[in-house]
Amino acid sequence: MSSEVPSEGLQLRSTVKADGMVEVALVRVPVPRPKADEVVVRVEASPINPSDLRVLFAGADMTRARAGGTAELPSVSAPVAPEQLRAAAARVGQSMAAGNEGAGVVVAAGSGAQAQALLGKVVGVSGETYSQYRCLKAAQCQPFPPGVSPSQGAAWSVNPLTALCMLETLRREGHRALVHTAAASNLGRMLVRLCKAEEVPLVNVVRRPEQVAALSALGATHVCDSSQPGFRESLTEAVAATGATLAFDAVGGGTLTSELLIAMEAAAARRQPGFRRYGTSIHKQVYIYGSLDPSPTVLPRVWGLAWGVGGWLVMNYLERLRPEEGARLRERAVAGLTTTFASEYAKEVSLAEMLRPEEIAVYARPSTGSKYLVRPSRPE
Amino acid sequence: MSSEVPSEGLQLRSTVKADGMVEVALVRVPVPRPKADEVVVRVEASPINPSDLRVLFAGADMTRARAGGTAELPSVSAPVAPEQLRAAAARVGQSMAAGNEGAGVVVAAGSGAQAQALLGKVVGVSGETYSQYRCLKAAQCQPFPPGVSPSQGAAWSVNPLTALCMLETLRREGHRALVHTAAASNLGRMLVRLCKAEEVPLVNVVRRPEQVAALSALGATHVCDSSQPGFRESLTEAVAATGATLAFDAVGGGTLTSELLIAMEAAAARRQPGFRRYGTSIHKQVYIYGSLDPSPTVLPRVWGLAWGVGGWLVMNYLERLRPEEGARLRERAVAGLTTTFASEYAKEVSLAEMLRPEEIAVYARPSTGSKYLVRPSRPE
Repeated sequence: MSSEVPSEGLQLRSTVKADGMVEVALVRVPVPRPKADEVVVRVEASPINPSDLRVLFAGADMTRARAGGTAELPSVSAPVAPEQLRAAAARVGQSMAAGNEGAGVVVAAGSGAQAQALLGKVVGVSGETYSQYRCLKAAQCQPFPPGVSPSQGAAWSVNPLTALCMLETLRREGHRALVHTAAASNLGRMLVRLCKAEEVPLVNVVRRPEQVAALSALGATHVCDSSQPGFRESLTEAVAATGATLAFDAVGGGTLTSELLIAMEAAAARRQPGFRRYGTSIHKQVYIYGSLDPSPTVLPRVWGLAWGVGGWLVMNYLERLRPEEGARLRERAVAGLTTTFASEYAKEVSLAEMLRPEEIAVYARPSTGSKYLVRPSRPE
Repeated sequence: MSSEVPSEGLQLRSTVKADGMVEVALVRVPVPRPKADEVVVRVEASPINPSDLRVLFAGADMTRARAGGTAELPSVSAPVAPEQLRAAAARVGQSMAAGNEGAGVVVAAGSGAQAQALLGKVVGVSGETYSQYRCLKAAQCQPFPPGVSPSQGAAWSVNPLTALCMLETLRREGHRALVHTAAASNLGRMLVRLCKAEEVPLVNVVRRPEQVAALSALGATHVCDSSQPGFRESLTEAVAATGATLAFDAVGGGTLTSELLIAMEAAAARRQPGFRRYGTSIHKQVYIYGSLDPSPTVLPRVWGLAWGVGGWLVMNYLERLRPEEGARLRERAVAGLTTTFASEYAKEVSLAEMLRPEEIAVYARPSTGSKYLVRPSRPE
């Protein structure tokens, strides 16, 4: 084992307590010695995605977060509401590591050829990435193309694979265009570039006027602002122009899902004119893949009977693919890390800084444009 | 043409007026002379299904219905609420015949062999069945097995094909058991008998205590009453016992769809124990095929991400089948008209009686057990 690997490293761990509090704490954990087929990765960059927030904070009210612990090993606690606590019942008392994805440098390797070949390489990893060091199988590391830094590749997996699998879903289910909400996000920008490259018409729905300009500058053709009067009409025109019958909705709660279905049915009715008692027979599908609005989805069902709404999770989708299909998608993801799948961040923080209530107030807000990059192994 | 066929017959027609009123009126229409490949059917029985009510009344508030017309040719009018009027925009000013299905006797036939072979036969027909006579192609008539009367076979199509296609959906989508709501309906009773015959486990959800006994008497194993405390627990136990991951919901509005998903996820969590941040990976599907509660469907999304909710329409389903598959299902339907697919009615009415506000108040109520049978050609 290389002399530059310490025996211990820092890691964030989240625990929901029986008293209804969630505590996220920085702890020291041993760095394992790699087995023959394993490597040790020094994690240098990891994004804070919405999917990470749920594991970290268990749906707690983080406006009530209180700092604790020591200067060296800080922690933060907050109360979890009763209905969130029910959803978290199976993890009460269990200390969980967090961080879905990240990138770093292979600093130690077991004796196996595949492990040795990775020594010194920059790789992408998945799981427990809010850690300074990760010991895992060489086969679980995704080598990056030459010149891609850990910061550039930190978000190598969740967003790029989500964008790629959204287009796979479109093709498999026979749609020809799609609508995406919260479209000014990192994922939304990736989709704009990917759909442009693949010539798939895309309707972008954003929630603030300044986001329209940002997406248009990126080359987006259709951008509809849900905060504006006339949103329903502009969305309907964009849907009619593209023929979109599929939408991926990151908001989930409230009536945005319904607005998507209403616009798609209005556009479909132009293709099937005349009175149809059950609406058109053109199937309209909305997948809810995020929950920026955690309130209930409200569906007034005024769009006929040819419709579907469902949950969508890139991991569930990937599980159904053949291994070689998954590998091909990951190769496409990392090949585009500095172009199609480039990410932008509002701020970089250390693991300790991640636990400051004032930082949490910014990065845990369900709002586009406040994505943080964690630098677990950055010198303090 | 047979001398027993008059030159005119009675028919109900529904019109949404530009002033926001819907008028349903009894009118005289000519009985066409059949072409070579056509027959004339004297319609003797036709059920009033929920799907017929929408065409007849366009979602109007029928508690405000006012009788009109003459004693011989009565009519009834009621105001359509603005949001319903928007949905009916494409039919404003258009006089529409109604009645999805019915049965009668072939009283005249064209010269073609197929038409002649039907003369005197009892057949099932589809469309505009709130009419005394229907002239249609011989190929569009479904002959009944010997001994089945028009009353027994009036509901030969919608409910039996719905029940059969629900089980086809179950098989095609890989489920092994299903949940059905509003299960004390005629359709619900058919499903109890059909699932028993086909050994598909069925969970019946009813809304009144007396319906539990009625379904149990029919041989139903799992009956859950949503009006009782402990409904969520009893539903979860029944879902766990059967392994149901599919539900057909006739209610649609409110929180029943959510209760189905909550119970299915709770049962799925027993098969996938431990904390899973996105819920289980077992797909749960609810199809909304009716709208007994027209209020919005409210989905709090507390059942993970492996779920779908969608509209389901037997006609859309049948359209996707090959012609021989559809024919096979119709043969199975009429073969069971006095057994598996037998129907019961609260009352029989003539076309004129159908327009009485006091009858409408009963048969248009979204409530199980008040289904009417219309006898268009019954002597007054």
